[in-house]
This record gives sequence, C-alpha cells and structure tokens, in this order.
Amino acid sequence: MRLPALRAFERYLPILDWGKRYNRDTFTNDIVAAVIVTIMLIPQSLAYALLAGLPAEMGLYASILPLMAYAIFGTSRALAVGPVAVVSLMTAAAVGNLALQGTPEYAAAAIILAFLSGLVLLVMGFFRLGFLANFLSHPVIAGFITASGIIIATSQLKHILGIPASGHNLLELVHSILAHLAEVNFWTLAIGVPTTAFLFWVRKGLKPRLIAAGIPPKLSDILAKAGPVAAVVVTTLVTWALGLNDRGVAIVGDIPKGLPPLTIPKFDMEIWTSLIGSAVLISIIGFVESVSVAQTLAAKKRQRIVPDQELIGLGASNIAASISGGYPVTGGFSRSVVNYDAGAETPAAGAFTAVGIALATLALTPLIFFLPKATLAATIIVAVLSLVDFSILRTTWTYNKADFAAVAATILLTLGFGVELGVSSGVLISILLYLYRTSRPHIAEVGLVPGTEHFRNIERHKVETSPEILTIRVDENLYFANARYLEDYLYDRVVGDKQLKHVILMCSAVNDIDTSALESLEAIDHRLTDMGLKLHLSEVKGPVMDRLSRTHFLHELSGRVFLTQYGAVRELTPAKQKRA
Amino acid sequence: MRLPALRAFERYLPILDWGKRYNRDTFTNDIVAAVIVTIMLIPQSLAYALLAGLPAEMGLYASILPLMAYAIFGTSRALAVGPVAVVSLMTAAAVGNLALQGTPEYAAAAIILAFLSGLVLLVMGFFRLGFLANFLSHPVIAGFITASGIIIATSQLKHILGIPASGHNLLELVHSILAHLAEVNFWTLAIGVPTTAFLFWVRKGLKPRLIAAGIPPKLSDILAKAGPVAAVVVTTLVTWALGLNDRGVAIVGDIPKGLPPLTIPKFDMEIWTSLIGSAVLISIIGFVESVSVAQTLAAKKRQRIVPDQELIGLGASNIAASISGGYPVTGGFSRSVVNYDAGAETPAAGAFTAVGIALATLALTPLIFFLPKATLAATIIVAVLSLVDFSILRTTWTYNKADFAAVAATILLTLGFGVELGVSSGVLISILLYLYRTSRPHIAEVGLVPGTEHFRNIERHKVETSPEILTIRVDENLYFANARYLEDYLYDRVVGDKQLKHVILMCSAVNDIDTSALESLEAIDHRLTDMGLKLHLSEVKGPVMDRLSRTHFLHELSGRVFLTQYGAVRELTPAKQKRA
Repeated sequence: MRLPALRAFERYLPILDWGKRYNRDTFTNDIVAAVIVTIMLIPQSLAYALLAGLPAEMGLYASILPLMAYAIFGTSRALAVGPVAVVSLMTAAAVGNLALQGTPEYAAAAIILAFLSGLVLLVMGFFRLGFLANFLSHPVIAGFITASGIIIATSQLKHILGIPASGHNLLELVHSILAHLAEVNFWTLAIGVPTTAFLFWVRKGLKPRLIAAGIPPKLSDILAKAGPVAAVVVTTLVTWALGLNDRGVAIVGDIPKGLPPLTIPKFDMEIWTSLIGSAVLISIIGFVESVSVAQTLAAKKRQRIVPDQELIGLGASNIAASISGGYPVTGGFSRSVVNYDAGAETPAAGAFTAVGIALATLALTPLIFFLPKATLAATIIVAVLSLVDFSILRTTWTYNKADFAAVAATILLTLGFGVELGVSSGVLISILLYLYRTSRPHIAEVGLVPGTEHFRNIERHKVETSPEILTIRVDENLYFANARYLEDYLYDRVVGDKQLKHVILMCSAVNDIDTSALESLEAIDHRLTDMGLKLHLSEVKGPVMDRLSRTHFLHELSGRVFLTQYGAVRELTPAKQKRA
Repeated sequence: MRLPALRAFERYLPILDWGKRYNRDTFTNDIVAAVIVTIMLIPQSLAYALLAGLPAEMGLYASILPLMAYAIFGTSRALAVGPVAVVSLMTAAAVGNLALQGTPEYAAAAIILAFLSGLVLLVMGFFRLGFLANFLSHPVIAGFITASGIIIATSQLKHILGIPASGHNLLELVHSILAHLAEVNFWTLAIGVPTTAFLFWVRKGLKPRLIAAGIPPKLSDILAKAGPVAAVVVTTLVTWALGLNDRGVAIVGDIPKGLPPLTIPKFDMEIWTSLIGSAVLISIIGFVESVSVAQTLAAKKRQRIVPDQELIGLGASNIAASISGGYPVTGGFSRSVVNYDAGAETPAAGAFTAVGIALATLALTPLIFFLPKATLAATIIVAVLSLVDFSILRTTWTYNKADFAAVAATILLTLGFGVELGVSSGVLISILLYLYRTSRPHIAEVGLVPGTEHFRNIERHKVETSPEILTIRVDENLYFANARYLEDYLYDRVVGDKQLKHVILMCSAVNDIDTSALESLEAIDHRLTDMGLKLHLSEVKGPVMDRLSRTHFLHELSGRVFLTQYGAVRELTPAKQKRA
C-alpha cells in the first residue's frame, strides 16, 4: 500500500511514475529524438522570438528551462514545449499595448506575461478548471488559427522586404506595408524570396523525392523538416561572405553570451493588471493547442494524458520561462510530431533537448551573428501558412449554420481587430448561439403510430390522435432559458381549442428540469387548470423523477404521471372513442 | 380577406382587434374597475416617486399617458401599468450615479431613463428579442425581488424615523441610518409607526373580518387594498390639524398644478451612454415582471398575450412616461390583480384609469399638500415586505444546488452591492452554471437487461455485457462544451482494457451534435483506430442522422451505424460467445 501523501505527490509529479521504469533503451531513444528536435528548435526559437518582437536570445531561453519543467510535471510522453507561432503573436499583441518593441520594458513585460500565464495555468490546474478550455469550440479555434496565420505571415513580410511596418491586425499591417513599399531593400529581398521559395519546396517537394530515392518515409519527413536549418546555415554564410549587413540586410547581430540569468519578475500592480487578461487568453489558447497535440500522440500508443495535470506542466513551464528570461511557451504541434516520430519515449527527451539548446546557446550564438532576419521570417511564413485553412467555413456552412456564424465572426474580427478581440468574441458568440438554440428547443406534437405503441411527430408521420388529448414532446432539457418558451408554445396551442381536456408532456428526451422549468410547469399546470384542462407527464426519466419527488409538484399536479406514453393515452381516451 | 397591411397593423395595434367588439357592458365593467384602480394608484404613484427619489407629481405623471399608450399597444386585458417598487428602486440606483436627489438634473435623468427604456423595449419588440428575458431564471428573479424588497423597506425607514439617510445597498443604508439615529423626529415617528402598523393590520387582519361580516370576498379584498387611501386621508388631516409640518414632519408640499407639460427629452451623449446599461436592465426586469403577471391573468380567461407585442406596449408606455414628465413604468402585480378582480375586461379600463389619475392630478394636488412622507413610506414598506420571500433558498437547496448558488449569489450581491450588480451577476452565474452542468454530462456504461432488448446503466441494473464491447450512453446534446469531456472519458475508460474490440456510442438522448462534437467524434474514431478498436453508433435520431449524412464522417467511421442498440450488440458479439 502506498501512502496517500505519496499518491498526491505522484499526481503532481508524473516523473515519479515514468522515472521508475527508465532504462538504457528508453534513454537511447530519447537522446536520438532530442538531437533531432534540438536541431529543428534552434531556428524556430529564434524566429518566434522575432515574431513576438523580442531579442532572438529570448526564444532560445524559452526553450531551455521550460522543457525541463515540463519533463518533471507534464503527462505527455511526446509533447515538445517551447515558443510557438500563435502564442508569440498573442505575446506581441499583449505586450505591444504596454511598451515599444525593442525597448527593455517590452522584453520585461513579455517576461511578466510568461509569469502570469504560468500562474493562471497553475491555478487552473490546482482547481481542476481545465474544462474552461472546452468553451473554445473547435470551429472558433480553427477560425482563430487561420486568421492568426494570415496576420503572422503578413507581419513577417516586412522582414522579407526589408522595410519597417507594424500593426496588430491585417488592416494596420497591410496599410503600414503599403506606406513603406518604396523603401524595399533589394538585398533583403534577394535573401528572403529565394529562402521562402526553398522552404516551400522543401515542405512540398523534397519529401516525396526523398521517399522516391528510397529513404524511409519517417526519416524523409525529419530531413524535410530540417530544411530551415539548411536555410539558416546558407543564408548566414552568404550574408557574412558578401557583407550584406552593410547593404541594409537586417541580421540577428550580437547575442549575449552564456546562459540566461535567473531572476524573479518584479511585481508592478499596473503592469500586472494590464497583462492579466491577455495572460488568461494566452494560457487557455496555449493549453487547448497543447492538449490536442498531446492527446493525438498519446492515443497512438494507448497512453493517456491528464488534462488537469497538463495545466500544471504548462504552468511550471511558463514560470520556468519567466525566471530564465524567456516568454510564454506551450506545446508545439510540428516539433511534438517530430519528437514522436524520432522515437521519444518519455518526457526525458524534452530534458535532453533542453540540454541541447543550452549547449547551442553557449556555443552557437557567435555563429548566428550574420543570420538574416529575412531567413527567420521565411521560416515563419512557410510554417504558419500551413495553418491557414478556410475549409472550416465550408464544413460548418453545410453542417451547422450557428458554428459557421461563430467561425466567420472569429476570422473577421481577428483579421480586423487583432487576436484578443477576435478569439474572445468567437467564444462569446458560440456560447450565445448555443444558448439561443437551446432556448428555442424542438417541440413536437405527437400521435400514436397505428398498430404500435410508438408515438411520433404528427407532422412527419401518419398517426392517430384524439381531439381531447394533446401530447407534446420537448427534445431538450427544460431549463430557465427555454421554460417560458414552452409556456408560450403551450398557451398558443391550447387557447381556443374547445374540445381539449388533457395535455400530456412526454419527457423522454428531458435529462434535466431546473427550478425555473419546474416553476414554469407549475404555472402551466395552474393556468391549464384555470382553463379546465389537466396536465399529465409521461416517460419521465429516473433521475428527473427522483428530483421531482422531492418537491410538492407531483402532489399538486392536476393530472398524473404515466410510466409510458401509450399507457397515458389508453387511460385518458374516453370510453366511447375506445370502443369505436 | 384582409389586406396584409391591415394585418400587420393589427399585429402592432391590438386595440383594433378588441375595439371592434367593444359595447356598453364591457364599458360599464371597465369603468368600475378603473375607479377602483384609480383610488389605489394615487397613493402608490406618490409613494413610488418618493422611493425613486423624485418629486411626488412625477409618480402621477407616470400614471396617465403610459396607461393610454398601453391601452393602445398592449395585449393584456387586465395589466395595469405605472410606477412599481423594484423599477423605482432601480431608477434611483441608475440616476443616483449621475446627479443628487432633489436636483433638476436628477429628475431630468429619470425622464431620459424612461425614454431609453422605451427605446430598448421597442427595439426588442420589433426584432422579437423577447426571448432574451428568458435568461433571467426564475430563482434569480425571486432572489432579486426579495433582496430589492429588503433594500426598499430599509431605504424607507428614514422617512418613518424622520432622519436623512442614503445608500444603494443594505450596508450603506444601515450604516447611514445608524449614523443619524440620534436625530430621530418624534412627531414623524408618531405618524409613521401607527400607519405602518395599521397598514399591516389592514393587509392581514381586515380582509378575514370583512368576509366574516358577510361582505363578499372580492369586495373585501378590494376594500382591504384601499387601506392606504384611508391612511393617506387620516394622516394628512392630522398633520394639517396639528400643524405637524412645523414640528419637523416631512410633507409632500407644493405640487405643480395642472397636467404635465409634453416635451421630448434632450439628447446628451454623455448622459445617454451612462444610462443605457441601466435602461437595458430596467427594461428586461420590468418586462419579465409584467409578462408573468399578464400571463397569469390571461390564462384565467383562456386569453393569450403576445410577449413580443408586450415589448411594444411597454416600450410605448415608457416613451409616453418620458414625454409627459414621468419615469420608467411597467405592469404592476397588485394593481393588475385589483383591476382584474374589479372586472376589467379590456385595456380600455387602463385608459379610464388614466383619465381618473389626470382628474386627480388636476383636483387633488392642493389637498395632499399636508400628506406626510412617512405615510407614503409606510405604504411602501408594507407593500414590499410582502415581496420578501426567502423560501426560494430552501426550495432550490433541496431541488437544485446550482439554482441555489445562483439565488444565494443574487441575494447577497444585491444586498451588498446594489440592484444592478446583483441582478447582472445572478444572470451570469446561472448561465455559467448551466454551461458547466452541460459541459460534464451524465455518461453511463450500459448493458443488456436479460430477457429484453433494453439497455441500462451497468451501475444501477443487473445487465449482461461482453468484454469485447463497450457501450456508452451520453445523456446530453454533444456540443463544444462537452465534446472534449466525452473524449477524455472514453480514453480513460479504454486505455488498458486489452480485451476490448468495439466501442458503441448509444445516441438515444442526443438531440444535436455540433461541429466541435463532430470533430471530437472523428478524433475519437481515429484514436480508437490507432488502438485497434472500432467505433460504432447506435440509435441516432433522425434529424441528427440527416446532418451527419451531409459530412464525410459516416464514410470514414471505422465501425457502423446501427438502428438499434440491440441489433448492434447482436451483430458485434463474437460467434463463440453467442453460442455459449
């Protein structure tokens, strides 16, 4: 028997579980995966820092300690955390409200943002609030990612063109780019355009060729994903050899040597309050992205991840990012897939990757002095354009118009007003539309299918009804938002029907009746009684009946509760008619 | 055949409908009801104006034109509109943020508030947004009314005690009253306390005595409700005779002679924007109160009201209140019941009441010069304490804990922070709790009840299951908020179960599957396939199936869709087992 304290410990420290079974085989597999992910992660880290408007080294710093933290607290065996595109864009949007890019205040705010995101995630984890992420519907996420991809790609055009431009939404960006179009730098363009084209080719064309050349598909895939490394090496050499930095090509330049200093972010009420909303958004978006990647990879090996513990893992990663000079991180899709395909078996692969990045930070920083920003921008553009996918508009249009409305609004508002407004509106709209839908439930008047005991919609089937009995089936839980709708529906239907004597509410699709709906049922009963009618219920589900029996409703009901709808109609049909 | 234009006309002008059938009998009945309601409405109007912090005449003004407007546009035969307690309190809270009580700016803001409420109601009516009121759950309204009653009664204590006091929530009020307790005016107390006691006795004790004395119950009821008129007459005479106004008893004093001047409120961007939120709240609360009264009374005569047209009726009433120097109005409960009991047959009774109040405004205003404010406060206290009812706490506690939480929060926040914050929080909390509930639906693992074709929860019933087949029944619509919950539930259940080959999702209680849930089902299917399992569906409802068949899901599904759960299990059970 294990002590409860130890069990609680293991809940919060998954490393205790997989650590016990660690051996030389898993170690070898993890090391191989770590080497591959490290090579892929270096240009990505630099590029996403650029996207966030931060110094390049902050991307590297965000790829060291956070990976260690996730290895200890995370539950996914294959997830690779670090800077990702959408979160970097959101960081730029959040921090851009507070300070100018390039200033120390801007970098400091990004560090605080990581700290706050970490806190938010940890709090959500401790209170098991992971379900909050469920209110981000799939279509809203899809729309948001697509719109973000467009904004990100557009924002990187300036680096390809060698012009200054800024903005947090598509209109601002396009306007800003057009205003500076006359200032295009030829040399930057000469680096940026071929690099972008090369990376597109690597992504689309290289892999099939490698496979055709007999290289195993997985290896081909990994090689294709190493394309950005080749681009970095070649363009850095070219820029250095031709001295392009003196001809206006922006380069990464000096990066502080050594590992990041460890510090705790300063508390400043004003900055913290203005960042907390963004931190919540970034946390939830990051969590949703990360969990869906982790779940997909875990399922392939019949493993499981624990979403509430993932919050702890990602929270710890962000705190780690913050105290080591990084910025908000989360689990990334492409690098996790690479990690998985390369054979990572435990979170230790992440820790080894962290060591790899740390070594790179120590050894390589002088080598990337001449790395052109245009190259990094090209890797971002190629990476994010694969996220852009408008098919969700078509899918939802044919399948569910409410979802379509939510997606369309999310895309338009994100493009027009930026990421934060876009995604918050998307969530609100999808919740409101859901509430609207359930507030007007499908209500059918039903009758007996001849020769059976089944009751069906009188508008869809040939059924038998009696003029004295009205049976209504509501296909939705009864709760406050639709209680009055049912009242209105019933009064409208009943008023003026002189022959009517009994109203039966068939509850086979009602999983819940809340207090408002109960009071509506009481009101309906009273008013029907005032009209000389009786209200009956039929096919009430067990749990609903349990609840109702704790109230006075069943005693005061003018009619009866019937187990089956068939029984109800048989008993209530007047004798004469039955004989006929 | 009627012209469509005329039909549209009749939709917006119910008077065209009932007006055609108007005759001498209905006229006599309406006149009698109007006289009784007029007598009751005079002290009420004055008192509620006092509660709203407005000059007494504004209460009368709000009881003339608004009643005319409702008679033309309203659909209820018995509803009596005018100033009511809760809306008066909300007016005081809204306007109190902008100006000091007693200033012309304060009165002007109340007039603008009525105008804005009217606009909000009209817009809601034209766009048929009456369903928005459904999001005010019954328990939240009950809690809100109770808390408002307490605040109102407490706020009127100052008039009984003859001290100044102010505040928009219970804490502020109690604190303010205690601070001024030393300044209590004896003569005011000598008027206020006996009047309050008398009115309580009239309400509780008089009616049974009248009935015992042989007076018909309905007449007794109306006589008992005329108690405030007697109190007004007696205390006015006493104050005048003893000259109590010179001894510190606050009186109504001078009231402008004649009918209100007609004006259109001035447009002032700043004031309008700061009042629009309150106007929306007041409109919705007033609409909900009014519609539930109207619906109760209409049902007694098998009549019907049209909620969306009620919005137009109440909107027109508030615009009318505004242009004639009144303040926000709505349908009142007690006076509508009196109107109904006194025999009102058409909205014309309201128009006649308006004439009555207009005559009273012309003739009586000099007579109420000496009316003590303490008497008005006493009528308010007695009226609103009947609204205070904490039983909703007990009811919801036993029936539905989520509703209890919403009520408790509404009561506490209203008492602690005022009406606007209280009711908005109540609405938000009940929506969030509903979403939370549906985000964690009841999911049951089911098995075959031996000897039948029925499938039941394995935890509640003795059922047969096969180790190779898992059947899950979800008792909720599948939508974005619970899609991932289902995913998590399934993975948790499936991981580690080595014998399992088939997973069946029994959809008998699923009325809707949105895009997110569809994508979750696809993800579940892919991941189960990765684990070597097949996903099947059973008992999918017709409309849900129609939708699914518009997507690729059914083609790509690893398993099959079975019409019945029984058929599914029979087909999927391995041959060996079947023989055994």
